[in-house]
Amino acid sequence: MTAPVSASDRPDSLPVLRLKPKANARAIRRGAPWVFENELVMDRRSRKIEPGSFAVLEDNDRQAIGVVAVNPNSKIVARMLDRNPLAVIDRDWLFDKLTKAVSMRDRLYDAPFYRLIHAEGDGLPGVVIDRFGDTAVIQPNAAWADRVIDDMASALMAATGVANVLKNASGRGRALEGLDDQNAVLIGSAPEAPLPVQMNGATYMADLTGGQKTGLFFDQRENHGFAARLAYEASVLDVFSHVGGFALAALAGGAKSAMAVDGSAPALELAAQGAAQMGKVLDTRQGDAFDVMTDLAAKGRKFDVVICDPPAFAPNKPALDKGLRAYERVARLATALVKEDGYLVLCSCSHAADVTAFTGACLRGIGRAGRRAQLLHTGYAGPDHPLLPQLAESGYLKALFFRL
Amino acid sequence: MTAPVSASDRPDSLPVLRLKPKANARAIRRGAPWVFENELVMDRRSRKIEPGSFAVLEDNDRQAIGVVAVNPNSKIVARMLDRNPLAVIDRDWLFDKLTKAVSMRDRLYDAPFYRLIHAEGDGLPGVVIDRFGDTAVIQPNAAWADRVIDDMASALMAATGVANVLKNASGRGRALEGLDDQNAVLIGSAPEAPLPVQMNGATYMADLTGGQKTGLFFDQRENHGFAARLAYEASVLDVFSHVGGFALAALAGGAKSAMAVDGSAPALELAAQGAAQMGKVLDTRQGDAFDVMTDLAAKGRKFDVVICDPPAFAPNKPALDKGLRAYERVARLATALVKEDGYLVLCSCSHAADVTAFTGACLRGIGRAGRRAQLLHTGYAGPDHPLLPQLAESGYLKALFFRL
Repeated sequence: MTAPVSASDRPDSLPVLRLKPKANARAIRRGAPWVFENELVMDRRSRKIEPGSFAVLEDNDRQAIGVVAVNPNSKIVARMLDRNPLAVIDRDWLFDKLTKAVSMRDRLYDAPFYRLIHAEGDGLPGVVIDRFGDTAVIQPNAAWADRVIDDMASALMAATGVANVLKNASGRGRALEGLDDQNAVLIGSAPEAPLPVQMNGATYMADLTGGQKTGLFFDQRENHGFAARLAYEASVLDVFSHVGGFALAALAGGAKSAMAVDGSAPALELAAQGAAQMGKVLDTRQGDAFDVMTDLAAKGRKFDVVICDPPAFAPNKPALDKGLRAYERVARLATALVKEDGYLVLCSCSHAADVTAFTGACLRGIGRAGRRAQLLHTGYAGPDHPLLPQLAESGYLKALFFRL
Repeated sequence: MTAPVSASDRPDSLPVLRLKPKANARAIRRGAPWVFENELVMDRRSRKIEPGSFAVLEDNDRQAIGVVAVNPNSKIVARMLDRNPLAVIDRDWLFDKLTKAVSMRDRLYDAPFYRLIHAEGDGLPGVVIDRFGDTAVIQPNAAWADRVIDDMASALMAATGVANVLKNASGRGRALEGLDDQNAVLIGSAPEAPLPVQMNGATYMADLTGGQKTGLFFDQRENHGFAARLAYEASVLDVFSHVGGFALAALAGGAKSAMAVDGSAPALELAAQGAAQMGKVLDTRQGDAFDVMTDLAAKGRKFDVVICDPPAFAPNKPALDKGLRAYERVARLATALVKEDGYLVLCSCSHAADVTAFTGACLRGIGRAGRRAQLLHTGYAGPDHPLLPQLAESGYLKALFFRL
């Protein structure tokens, strides 16, 4: 137990943000990382705090809780950076967080391709960093990260040895923080061609400058690996394939055939390039996934393994009911394409649909297609996407592995 | 859609069990596998049905729902065997179920060591079968399985090629079914010495006749594997180690040291034998896990990775509060033994404590020890323990991987 500290104990002159009496200071002390406007005394002074600057958060008894990043223009006015109210948030501080994150990934992965920083889960709120060998891509989705971006890039180079640091400003969160969408090269240069990335024995082509988000999603890696175990000598259909996440892992796992379906022609082109690098053949279909599934069913096509990894149909609470109906429809259409005793993998990256609600929607869809299911495995995002246990929403990704 | 069928459509003369009007026939049709006494019309005739024999389950409108196994002496009077009311439950039927189960395990595992039948999840209610190479162990924990045990053993030999089939009657469920606890050798012979089993690169010694349950638990295999990824060059403490599940996987993963703590001297002896077969050294401590952890903390011992896989502290709802306090205590004591930035793995095999309640208990324990945690990974029982999605209780095993 340390003695109570207040903002005046700091040698610098950080502004102070104070909790209202009704705010749940206990929850924040216990680990809740965000403070909303209605929990804070928002006077003229606190409203004037520059977006992205630091402040000391105090409870209503003027006891300091920690150092926060402030953005009076965001619904999340304060994000906890350090529970030591005397902490100085500088390049050294960033270097320490990055080094700690690297040491965990070094244990888990043979090669430096992973999500290095998963925002609150890695102690850098609102910041996502993906690493592709000697190139790292920062998504600064909170104002404070934009402000310290040069220190962050420099600390990142020091902690990891990467040569190139890119800034990706396309995150949806940035608009909520009042930030622009200007991408930039912070250090080194942007790779001119898509980069080959090895995962689960497959080769993926990551387009770091032209692709969606950071060009490749690392979060499904463990689920790709599990699906590959089911895919040996199997015919595999990967719907909503993006750059071929499940399909290429299945080919690496010995699938006898794989078909990738996606709405994006550039994503399918990257998937085909990956397959070519592996010396494998990937069948691709560009088009609306629902239409393609309906068409395949009409033609009587059946597969040993069908995987559907759609976009977030229920990204938020108001979209939940509609989203669950969409997942049910995906499950129903996909079930019709699965052979007797075959496997169906259904994924959701919807924050609002928890695993129970999502499983229910999947089972309704499977049932409407006249089949029954065993549930073999439930997978989440990989361990390079650690969670702050207090922030349940961070567990967005679910992958259910059924046998029908 | 098939036309309604009633018991009288069968050529044999299976007895009929009829649902009460208030029973939830829809839930049973949708997949609920159990029917309880209060849902059934229990007249003189149905009470006289021999425990373990088959019947046709009908709804209150005399439409057949399926073939069930009946035990009027159990709280679960009827267990759904086949949703086709005309199904004949014989050796061929058992052979089909076993063959389907084998084909899934063949995809998932390189070697024939796995749970082959996980009860309701594999369509054989109340039956557990573990396979150890050419020896299989049946746990018939429902009356019907005892009645057909010879057909089951014969079908098992035909479906898998095993030479030895043992019956393990020590399951707690048997008493609830009014069954004895007599073990038996059904086919072949019982192995005289503990069998070596390879998993995650480690060698485990499975004592199929003298050990707990079937001598080795397969359910933690994926979690052992994940822990091994964290264990490279690490000092590892495995508390409640049984025959060394986590400790030996960690040694195989390159741990620089491993200590196993358990109350059972025979289990630790098997763990040490496994380590010896691997050419590794395992430090063992026999004693009460709480005492040993307290003692290690008093001596200032710290480890890079600490794993606690205790027995079920909350096996049922009445035991939930007390069980959660025990998990909290385990988490608190174990946290004190984890180095800064080290890893803590906490497991629960309690049916009554769901993952949310268990996580909460763990976080309280970690918090009381003055530390904070990232949650890297949540693991469940491996895919050779498939779930009937309608039977939520089957998801008993949880393993939480924290970094402190």
